[in-house]
Amino acid sequence: MIKKLTIIGVGLIGGSLARALRARGKVGEIIGHNREERHLKRAVELGVIDRYEMDMANAVRGSDVVLLAVPVGAMRSVFEDLAGHLGDGAIVTDVGSSKGSVVEAAQQVYGKVPDWFVPGHPIAGIETSGVEASFAELFERCRVILTPLPHTSHAAVAKVRAMWECVGAIVEEVDVQHHDSVLAATSHLPHLLAFALVDTLATMDDKQEMFRFAAGGFRDFTRIASSDPMMWHDICVNNQASILRILRRFQDDLRKLSNAIENNDGGYLLDTFTRAKQARDMLADDGDLI
Amino acid sequence: MIKKLTIIGVGLIGGSLARALRARGKVGEIIGHNREERHLKRAVELGVIDRYEMDMANAVRGSDVVLLAVPVGAMRSVFEDLAGHLGDGAIVTDVGSSKGSVVEAAQQVYGKVPDWFVPGHPIAGIETSGVEASFAELFERCRVILTPLPHTSHAAVAKVRAMWECVGAIVEEVDVQHHDSVLAATSHLPHLLAFALVDTLATMDDKQEMFRFAAGGFRDFTRIASSDPMMWHDICVNNQASILRILRRFQDDLRKLSNAIENNDGGYLLDTFTRAKQARDMLADDGDLI
Repeated sequence: MIKKLTIIGVGLIGGSLARALRARGKVGEIIGHNREERHLKRAVELGVIDRYEMDMANAVRGSDVVLLAVPVGAMRSVFEDLAGHLGDGAIVTDVGSSKGSVVEAAQQVYGKVPDWFVPGHPIAGIETSGVEASFAELFERCRVILTPLPHTSHAAVAKVRAMWECVGAIVEEVDVQHHDSVLAATSHLPHLLAFALVDTLATMDDKQEMFRFAAGGFRDFTRIASSDPMMWHDICVNNQASILRILRRFQDDLRKLSNAIENNDGGYLLDTFTRAKQARDMLADDGDLI
Repeated sequence: MIKKLTIIGVGLIGGSLARALRARGKVGEIIGHNREERHLKRAVELGVIDRYEMDMANAVRGSDVVLLAVPVGAMRSVFEDLAGHLGDGAIVTDVGSSKGSVVEAAQQVYGKVPDWFVPGHPIAGIETSGVEASFAELFERCRVILTPLPHTSHAAVAKVRAMWECVGAIVEEVDVQHHDSVLAATSHLPHLLAFALVDTLATMDDKQEMFRFAAGGFRDFTRIASSDPMMWHDICVNNQASILRILRRFQDDLRKLSNAIENNDGGYLLDTFTRAKQARDMLADDGDLI
């Protein structure tokens, strides 16, 4: 049970967590804080938060849990704004898609990463954004990864874990670097490919034709290119090393495939497609590995 | 109304067309022909076809429409098997995903592309295959592209168009080369990227981890990697030039994106993602352009 929850950045993720905790009666008061007041007004209208505070000190006063749900590029300035305003025993957790950069930002602002900060990442995997799109069921069967450091408070980790589990999420703990490299491969790279593909087609002379003949497969494939550009800008900047590593590996593999097409190497094509189909068929569409 | 329809290759596409025409009472008898008898037996059991013939001459005897629904790599040998067995006034159409290679195969076998052959391609856009997966509604609101040559019989084109329209498809006519370059961009390239991405991840040491953390976006993005490997091998071989052209353009664009990440060129990233999102948002998920 959370007595007072402050959400910094009331968008899809923050708003959905607020709704889910509220629906289950697991939270007392919910305070919102954003840079832009109009989103907060809308969040109050929608019943997602109880009230909002434009001043950070007021926003977090007396809160036992503070959720940072801003783009990863904004984490550092939020840590700066937070400094000195948290009450005793308050826990801070975040939902950033890259963890190394968030941990580094906390370390730079506070000298060392505070033991009350639990880095986290709910892998929600939908491309909409904003508090209007939030819904209480978002985290059901969703995987949430926590990346605590060795000195992170055990009680803080337990409280954050309980918060996510009570809204239906499956919580796992991995180390920061491992999170960043796995997410670079399974989320960041696919988003880059979808953005790049749509942009390649959108900048061609006959782009109307291109999109007119696009079938269902193309729609599924490119859906993630509807994601928030600023959020993905931030992720690329903040998970640079891991993204470049997997992107280069992918570019090498794509070059081999391209060469196989050019050289009529049917065996290579068939082997690759068969291996990929087998791997993809292992992945159920509605949940875990089959 | 088709009196007698012969389907060469009773799989997802051929089977779905048979079901759809039957459901609408637009066909008399449906004969199947495959290389493998077991698929034909199953098609009869499922009520998709009335009967089958393992001999091509028997299969097409007296048919007014012959549908070629085999992988594009098999079209040439089907044309060879067909030669001399078609009755007067019989029309042949195909459903191959590349059109240049099919037209070329017909030209090689018959000396010139027969005026009774109407090259076609229903853009069904689903990744399942086989007669078991066939269903009568597959072509509703589906786009079917016909690529007749200047000397193709007008009556033959009209009959094939009517066949597809009566099962709910939207039929368009474009020239062969245009079809192949647009499909290379909107279908063949996305499939290659999905196969390549899944294979890149599947060949990594921690592949179990990779797929365990894959969220909904990854599932949508890679669904087309479950497509039939042999069919996609054939498409790559048979639409080589158009695929290589768009693939190289994409590789260039991906290299620029990669460089922008490496050089912290946030402006380039944000511009690209924003342009892509705008283009993708124009594309409704359930049908045409918005």
